Amino acid sequence: MPEKIKVGIVGVSGYTGRELLRILKYHPNVQIFEVFGSQSRGVFLSNLHPMLNLKFDLEVKDFFSESHNADVYFVCVPHGKAQDVVSLLYREGKRVIDLSADYRLKEASVYENTYGVKHNHKDLLQVAVYGMPEIFKANIRNAAIVANPGCLARATLLSLYPLLDSGLIKNKDCVVVDAKTGVSGAGMSLRDDLHFPHMNENLKPYAPLHHRHVPEIIQEISNFAGFSINLMFVPHLVAIDRGILVSTYFTTSEEISNEKLFEIYSNFYSDSPFVKVIYRNLPEIKNVRATNYVQIGFETSNNSGVVFVALDNLTSGASANAVHNMNIMFDFKETSGLEEMSPLYP
Amino acid sequence: MPEKIKVGIVGVSGYTGRELLRILKYHPNVQIFEVFGSQSRGVFLSNLHPMLNLKFDLEVKDFFSESHNADVYFVCVPHGKAQDVVSLLYREGKRVIDLSADYRLKEASVYENTYGVKHNHKDLLQVAVYGMPEIFKANIRNAAIVANPGCLARATLLSLYPLLDSGLIKNKDCVVVDAKTGVSGAGMSLRDDLHFPHMNENLKPYAPLHHRHVPEIIQEISNFAGFSINLMFVPHLVAIDRGILVSTYFTTSEEISNEKLFEIYSNFYSDSPFVKVIYRNLPEIKNVRATNYVQIGFETSNNSGVVFVALDNLTSGASANAVHNMNIMFDFKETSGLEEMSPLYP
Amino acid sequence: MPEKIKVGIVGVSGYTGRELLRILKYHPNVQIFEVFGSQSRGVFLSNLHPMLNLKFDLEVKDFFSESHNADVYFVCVPHGKAQDVVSLLYREGKRVIDLSADYRLKEASVYENTYGVKHNHKDLLQVAVYGMPEIFKANIRNAAIVANPGCLARATLLSLYPLLDSGLIKNKDCVVVDAKTGVSGAGMSLRDDLHFPHMNENLKPYAPLHHRHVPEIIQEISNFAGFSINLMFVPHLVAIDRGILVSTYFTTSEEISNEKLFEIYSNFYSDSPFVKVIYRNLPEIKNVRATNYVQIGFETSNNSGVVFVALDNLTSGASANAVHNMNIMFDFKETSGLEEMSPLYP
Amino acid sequence: MPEKIKVGIVGVSGYTGRELLRILKYHPNVQIFEVFGSQSRGVFLSNLHPMLNLKFDLEVKDFFSESHNADVYFVCVPHGKAQDVVSLLYREGKRVIDLSADYRLKEASVYENTYGVKHNHKDLLQVAVYGMPEIFKANIRNAAIVANPGCLARATLLSLYPLLDSGLIKNKDCVVVDAKTGVSGAGMSLRDDLHFPHMNENLKPYAPLHHRHVPEIIQEISNFAGFSINLMFVPHLVAIDRGILVSTYFTTSEEISNEKLFEIYSNFYSDSPFVKVIYRNLPEIKNVRATNYVQIGFETSNNSGVVFVALDNLTSGASANAVHNMNIMFDFKETSGLEEMSPLYP
Repeated sequence: MPEKIKVGIVGVSGYTGRELLRILKYHPNVQIFEVFGSQSRGVFLSNLHPMLNLKFDLEVKDFFSESHNADVYFVCVPHGKAQDVVSLLYREGKRVIDLSADYRLKEASVYENTYGVKHNHKDLLQVAVYGMPEIFKANIRNAAIVANPGCLARATLLSLYPLLDSGLIKNKDCVVVDAKTGVSGAGMSLRDDLHFPHMNENLKPYAPLHHRHVPEIIQEISNFAGFSINLMFVPHLVAIDRGILVSTYFTTSEEISNEKLFEIYSNFYSDSPFVKVIYRNLPEIKNVRATNYVQIGFETSNNSGVVFVALDNLTSGASANAVHNMNIMFDFKETSGLEEMSPLYP
Repeated sequence: MPEKIKVGIVGVSGYTGRELLRILKYHPNVQIFEVFGSQSRGVFLSNLHPMLNLKFDLEVKDFFSESHNADVYFVCVPHGKAQDVVSLLYREGKRVIDLSADYRLKEASVYENTYGVKHNHKDLLQVAVYGMPEIFKANIRNAAIVANPGCLARATLLSLYPLLDSGLIKNKDCVVVDAKTGVSGAGMSLRDDLHFPHMNENLKPYAPLHHRHVPEIIQEISNFAGFSINLMFVPHLVAIDRGILVSTYFTTSEEISNEKLFEIYSNFYSDSPFVKVIYRNLPEIKNVRATNYVQIGFETSNNSGVVFVALDNLTSGASANAVHNMNIMFDFKETSGLEEMSPLYP
Repeated sequence: MPEKIKVGIVGVSGYTGRELLRILKYHPNVQIFEVFGSQSRGVFLSNLHPMLNLKFDLEVKDFFSESHNADVYFVCVPHGKAQDVVSLLYREGKRVIDLSADYRLKEASVYENTYGVKHNHKDLLQVAVYGMPEIFKANIRNAAIVANPGCLARATLLSLYPLLDSGLIKNKDCVVVDAKTGVSGAGMSLRDDLHFPHMNENLKPYAPLHHRHVPEIIQEISNFAGFSINLMFVPHLVAIDRGILVSTYFTTSEEISNEKLFEIYSNFYSDSPFVKVIYRNLPEIKNVRATNYVQIGFETSNNSGVVFVALDNLTSGASANAVHNMNIMFDFKETSGLEEMSPLYP
Repeated sequence: MPEKIKVGIVGVSGYTGRELLRILKYHPNVQIFEVFGSQSRGVFLSNLHPMLNLKFDLEVKDFFSESHNADVYFVCVPHGKAQDVVSLLYREGKRVIDLSADYRLKEASVYENTYGVKHNHKDLLQVAVYGMPEIFKANIRNAAIVANPGCLARATLLSLYPLLDSGLIKNKDCVVVDAKTGVSGAGMSLRDDLHFPHMNENLKPYAPLHHRHVPEIIQEISNFAGFSINLMFVPHLVAIDRGILVSTYFTTSEEISNEKLFEIYSNFYSDSPFVKVIYRNLPEIKNVRATNYVQIGFETSNNSGVVFVALDNLTSGASANAVHNMNIMFDFKETSGLEEMSPLYP
């Protein structure tokens, strides 16, 4: 490996593109080499994001009319628009990490039903590797396309893998996942319900039982466990900027204890440097804010258990996890550029 | 009935006592006649709560050293301390609405285990009526002691009654209740985790599966349905002042629809003037803030359903519901003094 | 006076129209008789604002194609659009309270420069009375058109009148007014900088020294004092829903004390039932939230003084003050329907 | 200079100590060598601050009973307690950066009146250098003791230096400084008014005209300009975690323009790498959150001007500025470890 690889970012105006810049500028193995955008085309990064205090500067270029000369690309454009970008890069022989939903679902029909968009590159759906480093490290290492997980999907799956793996959750079991997420998860587009005076001091469910991340979660559970579960998934919007807390409820045929869960989760994530399984305390969103770290804790009562996962939707749920995937793809130290991030507190 | 009854309040410094004053001052059938307190003893209401803009004034007196001359008392002191106040008023022939937990549990041993306090008046536990107006209107009408429900218990039970009543939930069924509550629910006592810079922009579970309101919920389910369910109950603290949103998850043997749930809930609460069952929208905390109203909505998917209940923990979850109970006890119009409350928006 | 007058509201979708409904429904001397709107035309209030829990219902009608049959109208449409509504009502012989800026400025050219809109009814500018009840009670009583003050102008002027009146501020004196206002003051229109993730945890100045309320403040100072001052006025947007705190800084030729200021302000506002001059404490926004009350406090040091005024921008700064004006216009008790409002705390 | 110096921190439990750890762990020229504390004595950093994800670990030791073997010390204990710590380190020949107020004021009597604490090391008051890197770089370079400025004092002074330097503000001129600060500025100690349900959605002035930072500001103005001004300084507490926005109002004898101010400030701070003078936009707190950067902007109108300074009270207002001072003291690159910090947005 060269000491530094050249990185391209497609889409630098939105929350995830900006967050990538915030993270990558500290990365010892990366040169941010070129950036692309549509609305911000022709603007320099120093003007687009003056507060990022970047030590370098780049002009934002148009993706489709320019050549692409980096080693790896992060695609931060909305679903539906990402698919052509990824496809073109792939055909040019570039490696790609796609932060959109466009290559997460293996069945084009499921994608098209879920997102209401036609998929123009169905052949690539099987090429893409689901970018969950805790599970698919080997596949990610050699992937041409990495489909970075949805933020809610990632939090949910991290709560479920050890339960599925240990047999505590079995085929057809009913599992409830109640998610709470900060408002940045809804993106930058203006909406009446995200106008400050509406959202502030408020809390509400959205897309209950039918959220777009459900097919992604279902697919990955099935892929991991070889069976399906009866999942009830409801996200709730809370009046904070960042962070997801997922509460995952399950029952078992035998009595379960906190000690047992701690052992199962600790073992399962023993090779996952960003997952912190905690015992006496419970996860809090502010403990992981602005980092790639994930806190997992639990509580049990007889045959019932609840697992809590806290992560930051923009870092561990999007941009920092994408960098984690890049580290694996290029054989960097897995935690390179990410290990020292600490939460902003207060 | 006289046109106006005399009301006494024991405990006027805390959130629920203050909220009672805010509500009762508008009540057409009430004269706030005497108020009692310990720390605030000797202070006048106009000095204790100048911003309440009361048209009358009263000196805060010591409860145990003064005589009691009102028709009905609201007891707003902490659990453990309320029991002697209630008992004394009862023996003096007064009617009492207790906002603490002291008379909610019918078994003294359950109370003592749950709250870590000895109960000195076990004989009165069977005298007290659980103050859930939507269910126990007849009993409340004649009650000597009304035990006002806990805020989380009230929200949870309102989500469950129609499911239990309709048979959608059956004996031994597993039900998950995920609650989110504003910080005022934790009271006025200073705590590190409620210090603004810790709590702001944060979110966390507390007392998962073992919260103090669980025995109360379990008792009332059993009392209502004649059977028990496998309840998993977890509250979460969110960075807002007021409001509870409860998400109640269940599965049924047959397919269930939104239409069916709307019909069941609408019918069940057809005589409950403060419960608003909604169909196309979903409950939001800000829709009911500062009122006695409750929003209930739902979503279904095949055999799964989730019910959302939004209410304000200090009004519908405490003080306004106590006034609702008083209206019933004294044969006032059920909605007297409460029907016109509207949420502060924004 | 009849026991109840008929009220019409033009513009019921926005924050001030909704807030008027919230206030007027409690008013003992008012029947909300007809409501008008453009986007909400044809909708019933029970559907437009279900959470207001109104005991009556009305269909929203189109203002210009319908007849107008109430005794008094509140105009809650944006500046520029209000002027024709007010003019038409005036020519029909109706009394009007205009919550927009359209009739506040006496000079059409100042209005046109400030708001970038042509004024079509310049003859009415001298008809309109500035709706500051603490100063113009007599004129308001007989007014055909009341121009309700801007929220920031009202807070600022309330801090200044006693200083001007007492001679503590003199001709050409320099006065600094630093205002902090909640986000509802910026209205319901979506803006990037009011999107929750941008505004939350943020704070910034806007329109410093050149805010649209400055000409209104300057005009009223001159009108009241007969001279002009050198005013520096800067509002700041803070991440709360409601409330204004104004800090007004001045210097005097002689030493000034808190006692002296308390005496001056107490005397000046002795006939103003909604102004609370406080001494040992300082105003806080949460103390007056959701009410028509105003808190005024101060601090001094040698020849310097600062006056703090806290009020709620949507109530005392808009809709509740408009109702106060109505009370005066119709010889109701001045505090009718407003005196018992208390702040939502917490 | 050695490549890395050994750093000691006295006081690691509070906000500023924790923030120092967050910053210094990225610093290329620093080894965090020893840490001291009282309540946390005997605890390891990995347990005290697990979420900081430090790559090293240290036991918290008792300061007065242990030897001190680092090259430089940051003192993060409260005022009154810091003075003995600093004095002992000084007498041991160590270089010290004191984040408390204990060595900021040159006159012991002023200190004692302001803080109500006796000063035991008056001889050292003249030894200490005021740690404002934008002004005192040369003195800081050789300082034995650096007194790190108070957060509000630093923001205020940064707004004033160019005005004083350019003669726009003259002897005896009246200047108003209205400051708004996040709640972390009030520290970790629990207080009723900082309890979440009291502070949330609130805003209030505190210590108006008499805040503890006033003597520090006055001293430094006099020290810099050789004359005194008539300063009116009022801080306000706003419901956000972090950040200060200072609005500084002044008048001049001649007309002033934005262009002129931009030129003056840009020139004055041309050698100050962390001060960003902006022209078309205005400072916002969220633009500098979590960084050592300072945004300065302005507006003018005839003879009046207002200068806005935004900085983060815990970084540029405390810990990051202390690191900036250390960089100067040890001839590191001035921006070492600080230049790439970027604000958490959203």
